[in-house]
Amino acid sequence: MQNDLVAALDIGGTKIAGALVDSDGRILVRAQRPTPAQEDGETVMRAVSEVVGELTASPLWARAGALGIGSAGPVDASAGTVSPVNVPGWRDFPLVERVRAAAGGLPVELVGDGVAIAAAEHWQGAARGHDNALCMVVSTGVGGGLVLGGSLYSGPTGNAGHIGHISVQLDGDPCPCGARGCVERIASGPNIARRALESGWRPGPDGDTSAAAVAEAARAGDPVALASFERAAQALAAGIAATATLVEIDIAVIGGGVAKSGDVLFAPLRRALRDYATLSFVQQLTVVPALMGTDAGLVGAAAAALGSRAGAAAAGVGG
Amino acid sequence: MQNDLVAALDIGGTKIAGALVDSDGRILVRAQRPTPAQEDGETVMRAVSEVVGELTASPLWARAGALGIGSAGPVDASAGTVSPVNVPGWRDFPLVERVRAAAGGLPVELVGDGVAIAAAEHWQGAARGHDNALCMVVSTGVGGGLVLGGSLYSGPTGNAGHIGHISVQLDGDPCPCGARGCVERIASGPNIARRALESGWRPGPDGDTSAAAVAEAARAGDPVALASFERAAQALAAGIAATATLVEIDIAVIGGGVAKSGDVLFAPLRRALRDYATLSFVQQLTVVPALMGTDAGLVGAAAAALGSRAGAAAAGVGG
Repeated sequence: MQNDLVAALDIGGTKIAGALVDSDGRILVRAQRPTPAQEDGETVMRAVSEVVGELTASPLWARAGALGIGSAGPVDASAGTVSPVNVPGWRDFPLVERVRAAAGGLPVELVGDGVAIAAAEHWQGAARGHDNALCMVVSTGVGGGLVLGGSLYSGPTGNAGHIGHISVQLDGDPCPCGARGCVERIASGPNIARRALESGWRPGPDGDTSAAAVAEAARAGDPVALASFERAAQALAAGIAATATLVEIDIAVIGGGVAKSGDVLFAPLRRALRDYATLSFVQQLTVVPALMGTDAGLVGAAAAALGSRAGAAAAGVGG
Repeated sequence: MQNDLVAALDIGGTKIAGALVDSDGRILVRAQRPTPAQEDGETVMRAVSEVVGELTASPLWARAGALGIGSAGPVDASAGTVSPVNVPGWRDFPLVERVRAAAGGLPVELVGDGVAIAAAEHWQGAARGHDNALCMVVSTGVGGGLVLGGSLYSGPTGNAGHIGHISVQLDGDPCPCGARGCVERIASGPNIARRALESGWRPGPDGDTSAAAVAEAARAGDPVALASFERAAQALAAGIAATATLVEIDIAVIGGGVAKSGDVLFAPLRRALRDYATLSFVQQLTVVPALMGTDAGLVGAAAAALGSRAGAAAAGVGG
């Protein structure tokens, strides 16, 4: 039987999702468990095994030729291990080996979750047709992944594109990562909300102090709310411009909860990009909202597995 | 006859150098002209043609299979044009076409000068054996180039690695490029000297106000001179850490006049790198002085030509 499908796992701090995906990116079979994120490592692994077990029980499983994993980071693709910040029970956890065993020896490809999102947007979403792209998620954190020269660029350990933790303000506020002035420290949803509150913005009667509530206030013209989004946009623009200046991307795709703010974010972001993307070869850089929905992680993990099979086939070692 | 040599051109604002280089990176034939940088474009091209003419007149010319150009930027490798900031007579100048004609139709590979330096350090210098490296020049300006996945990464227009113009201080001083707080605006030689002078440092009896003089004062313990180098080191560290966080380099190589300051630069740089390169996959990042001398541009242009021939051969189109 032809191996025309791939299996995919999307492992985050909240849920573990699995799927069988065809070569057009369609999800044919799904499985999901909540992540027992505060439990010991074996308990977390049991949830993963249950998801994989549901997939292997499908009559379509025999058609799966590879398995892709997109995992919360940091990951170490070269060692096959993961150490997700939000899953303390997993430190250098040998996820690739364990999943391979659960999946009957299928080839397994591991990438970070930002890389998986980039794979999905490049394959099916807003970066389709672009050979050089940065795809980001701006949400509770800020993550990303890169497409370079037409292919996903995950780097030797699967972590490339970690734009949330580049410093764009070297004298800026301390970031939990240990550095200062990181893009995430300025532009994540919680930091947008914190800055608005610190500058005197007050929530409405519902008491909602999320970035979404700040966005609503900004849309209504609240100057403090607008200023907080402007500042986030400036940090994102400096980070995106730095990426373009270093590796010549021509499009930045932004998804995640904060991107749902629409023009409250994108209008100042496009203005700020003109201030920071100044060299001739980056002036055409555009920034657009993501197109993939909540399945981006699964579709991207599938794309990573398919890409790795394509690479293997090109090298004459494919099956 | 075997095409076992390549021709190389290193085009800067001061000189135009040419060479025939063997497959071990040895320079067998040299030619050089001053760059008539303030003259019209055809006058500058005439100097290039004279250099190429000296090379084609060599009995070894028949063994040259390709020609590499490393040029002051910005370049546009996809269009084959250059627009060096310091050569106003060349704006979108069709250098590749003109050099190809002067070189009897040889295949020509164009890269930016920072990319050429990276090619040289990867082939023969401090980045040899490293699959993922950033190579920089810190001098009057700050430039760079990248090696990713074992190969030179020049980007679609040949400008990748432009670390001098990423912003590491988004509220920082205006940079001539139009942005603010660029690495070059903080860490170049002239900016190290300017900052020292503005903070009260005074030159010795010889009146030398260069960065080298500031370095000498720093070595003698002058606190203002030390502080100016510390600040430059911080900006370089933030830029290098950003690059590593985005594309997973494991070594940064620094050459150019400011790097000759030795520990005055490298000691605070290594300290600052620990502050900014915080994620697990970049903590092993090392920073070392460049090994290539003044021939780095020529050797790197040769490497770019050889790399492109190797790529062509791998794709089955090599000659």
